[in-house]
Amino acid sequence: MASTLLCRQLAVNLQQNLRLSAPSYRCISKAATKSSPDVEFDGPSMKTEVPGPRSRELTEQLDKIQNTCAINFFCNYEKSRGNYLVDVDGNRMLDLYTQISSIPIGYNHPALLKVMQNPQNLSAFVNRPALGSLPPENFPGNLLDTFLSVAPKGLRKVQTMACGSCSNENAYKAIFIWYRNKERGNMKPTKEDLDSCLINQVPGCPEFSILSFMGGFHGRTLGCLATTHTKAMHKLDVPTFDWPVAPFPRLRYPLEEFVRENAQEEARCLEEVEDLIVKYRKKGKTVAGIVVEPIQAEGGDNHASTDFFKKLRDIAKKHGCVFHVDEVQTGGGNTGKFWAHEHWGLDDPADIVSFSKKMLTGGYYHKDELTPAEPYRIFNTWMGDPSKNLLLNEVLNVIRTENLLDEVSRTGKVLMDGLYDFQARYPHLLSAARGQGTFLAIDVRDEATRNNLIIKARNKGVVLGGCGERSIRFRPTLVFKQHHAHVFLNIFNDTLAEYK
Amino acid sequence: MASTLLCRQLAVNLQQNLRLSAPSYRCISKAATKSSPDVEFDGPSMKTEVPGPRSRELTEQLDKIQNTCAINFFCNYEKSRGNYLVDVDGNRMLDLYTQISSIPIGYNHPALLKVMQNPQNLSAFVNRPALGSLPPENFPGNLLDTFLSVAPKGLRKVQTMACGSCSNENAYKAIFIWYRNKERGNMKPTKEDLDSCLINQVPGCPEFSILSFMGGFHGRTLGCLATTHTKAMHKLDVPTFDWPVAPFPRLRYPLEEFVRENAQEEARCLEEVEDLIVKYRKKGKTVAGIVVEPIQAEGGDNHASTDFFKKLRDIAKKHGCVFHVDEVQTGGGNTGKFWAHEHWGLDDPADIVSFSKKMLTGGYYHKDELTPAEPYRIFNTWMGDPSKNLLLNEVLNVIRTENLLDEVSRTGKVLMDGLYDFQARYPHLLSAARGQGTFLAIDVRDEATRNNLIIKARNKGVVLGGCGERSIRFRPTLVFKQHHAHVFLNIFNDTLAEYK
Repeated sequence: MASTLLCRQLAVNLQQNLRLSAPSYRCISKAATKSSPDVEFDGPSMKTEVPGPRSRELTEQLDKIQNTCAINFFCNYEKSRGNYLVDVDGNRMLDLYTQISSIPIGYNHPALLKVMQNPQNLSAFVNRPALGSLPPENFPGNLLDTFLSVAPKGLRKVQTMACGSCSNENAYKAIFIWYRNKERGNMKPTKEDLDSCLINQVPGCPEFSILSFMGGFHGRTLGCLATTHTKAMHKLDVPTFDWPVAPFPRLRYPLEEFVRENAQEEARCLEEVEDLIVKYRKKGKTVAGIVVEPIQAEGGDNHASTDFFKKLRDIAKKHGCVFHVDEVQTGGGNTGKFWAHEHWGLDDPADIVSFSKKMLTGGYYHKDELTPAEPYRIFNTWMGDPSKNLLLNEVLNVIRTENLLDEVSRTGKVLMDGLYDFQARYPHLLSAARGQGTFLAIDVRDEATRNNLIIKARNKGVVLGGCGERSIRFRPTLVFKQHHAHVFLNIFNDTLAEYK
Repeated sequence: MASTLLCRQLAVNLQQNLRLSAPSYRCISKAATKSSPDVEFDGPSMKTEVPGPRSRELTEQLDKIQNTCAINFFCNYEKSRGNYLVDVDGNRMLDLYTQISSIPIGYNHPALLKVMQNPQNLSAFVNRPALGSLPPENFPGNLLDTFLSVAPKGLRKVQTMACGSCSNENAYKAIFIWYRNKERGNMKPTKEDLDSCLINQVPGCPEFSILSFMGGFHGRTLGCLATTHTKAMHKLDVPTFDWPVAPFPRLRYPLEEFVRENAQEEARCLEEVEDLIVKYRKKGKTVAGIVVEPIQAEGGDNHASTDFFKKLRDIAKKHGCVFHVDEVQTGGGNTGKFWAHEHWGLDDPADIVSFSKKMLTGGYYHKDELTPAEPYRIFNTWMGDPSKNLLLNEVLNVIRTENLLDEVSRTGKVLMDGLYDFQARYPHLLSAARGQGTFLAIDVRDEATRNNLIIKARNKGVVLGGCGERSIRFRPTLVFKQHHAHVFLNIFNDTLAEYK
């Protein structure tokens, strides 16, 4: 069993704890509480620089097969455990990046290994069905136990998909189909509609658009990419649609010092949203939907107020557009609520909420009227993956039985207090600490310094990720506890202290 | 273990074999060879109509959550085995549709169950990595053992993705990036390129196009959908690109009787391809790539000659376009070669070959120059799934050790001879039997009759799928043997005999 192997490894690897090397930090963080060695390692353990020699050797091998410029290092997933990611050179690192925010309850969680050991589950892993035509017996029950048990308020329908991009692509299609059906007064399409769409022409393929925000990220396939506006390298050279791009508020921090300025900034952005809706309708590219992240993650952890999102929801309604909240990165509990947009307390729910990453598969919730009436309009071969749903079921059980969302709020406070302290002590380096729960970020003075800090922290045993131009994003698992926060804060304290 | 459960079930279920009810067919097919009961069931066993009462009950439950118009019936995957799909009402059917052609070596193959029982493999299933940044140690080796061990001639690079649509979307992006880089003379993008792409404008997002064929199917996300031209319901109401759509040859059968007409038809289509390339370049929508299936599958199993494809490859080369062969449905062995386009014997290989379905995950092979030079241009969170690669490794081992491609050719001949016999005996019902290996199809006189035949055959214990307007497509697994072909032919013979 993988768990036995992990336990054996644990005995070998209980080594120096890097927390001990950060005495200066005792003023803001207590020594880390020891975790049970049955469950997880005691702390980071570094043997080489990262990437080490074995990682570099494997990168060379892989480079003969694909572009490897984005490779950080190679991992030993069998030896990784809980919040600790072990690499192929034997380095053990506390992971606050979690595979781009996609590991919900840590590496090799016993509950997940148990799913794999139950013989009744094996057939779900080796016989992937065409879910849209030939689902397994437990499919409706499983949807109720998993996705619908955590459905955002007001949404009772869910469509599974295989990844975040496919989820948004299909959500956009559902939006367009709904909008055109509304325009058509629920009448059947004409022969001209049917014929023209087959050769990519109007009126069958109408010139609708989705309004998105500068700095937003919604995926990299061609439909999604038309609504993604983060880095040029994500979009360069790829044909796209002329769809409206609104400014997203650029809030000034600390928020309490810039209340008036930030309110003005949000009002400006909302005004621009309405102007764009009017402008694009006039030029025949009607805005059928608005897509927005509750926190622009890839784009730099850009936040806006509850008031902004409520008004945006109202604008969507006023203009008859679908309001699509993309929770691919924010969903799954990191903000202290299962869905980040639950913090807004909307009166009228979002029309569509898409997800992936920590949900282990993709998909979207939607209001009843966004179900197409005909078959095969939202369809593909696999339509998700029941084996991922089985694993998700256990993830949700663990979240519930261990009250992990409460834990996230408590741990998030420790992390955030630490970040506030850092920016107070290193104002020339750090600013704008922000976030909800453990979904946090801080700005670094420039991109080069940010990248450097991430590498230095990694060599001390902490895995971090960047986002936006010069931010560090913190995306720990949901089983990241207060003592893990202390381990991180101590190491990051050392990293900053060494940074001239 | 699932295998023990399956064996127990087997003892209970060895019941009447529907082959016995088809005496009239002995003239064209010998009695089926018995398969070993350890490995598979002895034949179909029908207890209810399909969908039966339990399937209908579950469909009602699911209908509260999603559109269920495309549901055929609910399955018991634990009890399914080899070529036999068992439903939730205890019906056991010989499967020639295989989850829309995506099950390579049958249900619950012992080699795949063994993968799940090896403790060293478990961590790949419970810790899905971000493959583009943090791959597991065995990743380069696994790519060599799996995808690259069956790479089409001349292609040494492979990029994995999670599904067929994502594979084509990313292949198109690689095409556009390559083309624009060539236009730019390998120079760096300008500031205007970088700024304009972020707001969806030229020159950063150029108006390039992909040329595709009427009747082609390349997926349902917005980029893919712009190259899909099968049924109106796949495309209706979804905004798209004005990209060129060429006619695909409509061959007349039997081929030997229409040699001259078919050659003219192919010449006409190729001429139109060249005309469209010129026309779209003139209107500023340069054709950067041509995408084509070796056999238009979803569109109705439309074939063209080797000569057609060789000339098409030459046209792509002459006009500097990428030649992209979409093997999502044709790849994996069903045509008797691992890749259908290997039948063409191209001198200059395809530039891109995309795959999914029987490969259990998605991806595309490509020539070296189609690797983007920068990171994050072809990227997403998961970039495939190592757990699927582990299963694929076993699939490929089974294909090799059991010489399944040879088996496919032998079985295909039995199937094809049967189809020829049927169309000779029922000329008012059937025509144009065609295909390669076991990747076969036959036309039915009209859509309603086709759909009816599929339902009647299902109620006798055979699962079939339609394609195009009025074709039946046959997509058995690679472990579908001659005796399975006999079981099918006997049942289909009865179905046809009852059809007035």
